[in-house]
Amino acid sequence: MKKRAVILLSGGLDSTTVLAMAKDQGYECYTMSFNYGQRTVAELKAAKAVSTQFGAKKHIEVKLDMTEIGGSALTDHDIDVPVGDAIAEEADIPVTYVPARNTVFLSIALGWAEVLEARHIFVGVNSVDYSGYPDCRPEFIQAFEDMANLATKAGVEGRKVHIEAPLSDMTKAQIIAAGVALGVDYQQTVSCYMSDDDGRACGECDSCILRRKGFEEQGFTDPTIYQ
Amino acid sequence: MKKRAVILLSGGLDSTTVLAMAKDQGYECYTMSFNYGQRTVAELKAAKAVSTQFGAKKHIEVKLDMTEIGGSALTDHDIDVPVGDAIAEEADIPVTYVPARNTVFLSIALGWAEVLEARHIFVGVNSVDYSGYPDCRPEFIQAFEDMANLATKAGVEGRKVHIEAPLSDMTKAQIIAAGVALGVDYQQTVSCYMSDDDGRACGECDSCILRRKGFEEQGFTDPTIYQ
Repeated sequence: MKKRAVILLSGGLDSTTVLAMAKDQGYECYTMSFNYGQRTVAELKAAKAVSTQFGAKKHIEVKLDMTEIGGSALTDHDIDVPVGDAIAEEADIPVTYVPARNTVFLSIALGWAEVLEARHIFVGVNSVDYSGYPDCRPEFIQAFEDMANLATKAGVEGRKVHIEAPLSDMTKAQIIAAGVALGVDYQQTVSCYMSDDDGRACGECDSCILRRKGFEEQGFTDPTIYQ
Repeated sequence: MKKRAVILLSGGLDSTTVLAMAKDQGYECYTMSFNYGQRTVAELKAAKAVSTQFGAKKHIEVKLDMTEIGGSALTDHDIDVPVGDAIAEEADIPVTYVPARNTVFLSIALGWAEVLEARHIFVGVNSVDYSGYPDCRPEFIQAFEDMANLATKAGVEGRKVHIEAPLSDMTKAQIIAAGVALGVDYQQTVSCYMSDDDGRACGECDSCILRRKGFEEQGFTDPTIYQ
């Protein structure tokens, strides 16, 4: 049996690159997106499209209503998404942080991996995010893996689960270069926190700024379609 | 400010006892239930009722559609729930195990705790469940707490999160005795995997059997209403 992997796929630049990497490494890929009350659904369409493009065995979209929990500009519509170069000036954790989001997504991916008997879960956390998001750091990923191996049938029976975070030490520019080499068409991906329903980006939010800088640093033309 | 706690509340015997304990310890209680495609919704009604009874500050019900993931008799309607004294005879993990369920529920509770600035999360795992469910063991709870303190703003800033599992070392009979002493009316709680919409129990599933034994061992009359 071909080795299976669950890929957390938002439809953004990072997770799409991760899918391309997992595919390149020979995994049978099961992609998973979350509809969790985020402002934009264009990224969900993008996730589906890139899953098809990279021949994922199955793509599922899990509905999780986190709006009652609140606390983030991405799900709580009373909090404004910051625009401009706010991320560089903030020492604090940004308001776009969704409480425990990676923990929640990895946990649900762990459940699916258990059903599929997949022993690898891929997640697109990377060094650019370290400054603000605690659940993007390597020590978090390691602690999650340790916990996962105590939480599951597979772990208890000695079939270890591995959390793969191949972008961990890469800059946005390096990620883009790796993805382009693997055939990723970044025009299909949606990174913007406030994209319209057709996936056109605002060009002003932190995510847009980080993404554009990545293309510039790498010397590639930015394929993003802006509003 | 009164210290806050998030309580994972299924509306069953164990978690209702935990709510009574947290209340008794002086916490301001925030109760959280999950609508995750389980066969029965009577337990959700029970969770709401006992939250009101014990003066929870807020009760929320999080919708999480896990049916696409499958893998458990409690959410996958193609798998039969075992009846009779199956739990005692099975060496294996029971089919009523929901993949990574406690990990998922604790993760979402962690997100809410972060928004509420609550530093305590109560969960009703107990020793009776150890035999089969890997995510009910103390080493899992400890690993989850360790991971949680690397995942969150609060943890990163030194305000540690604690996962409280007060039933860990208690038998079902001891749990019932503790709950009765704290004013729990167990007739309001629903433990059955296959209860009807009015919360009447089947009397035959593993959960019903464990519960009835608990009342018998403690010498209490079983207040459960059976179908």
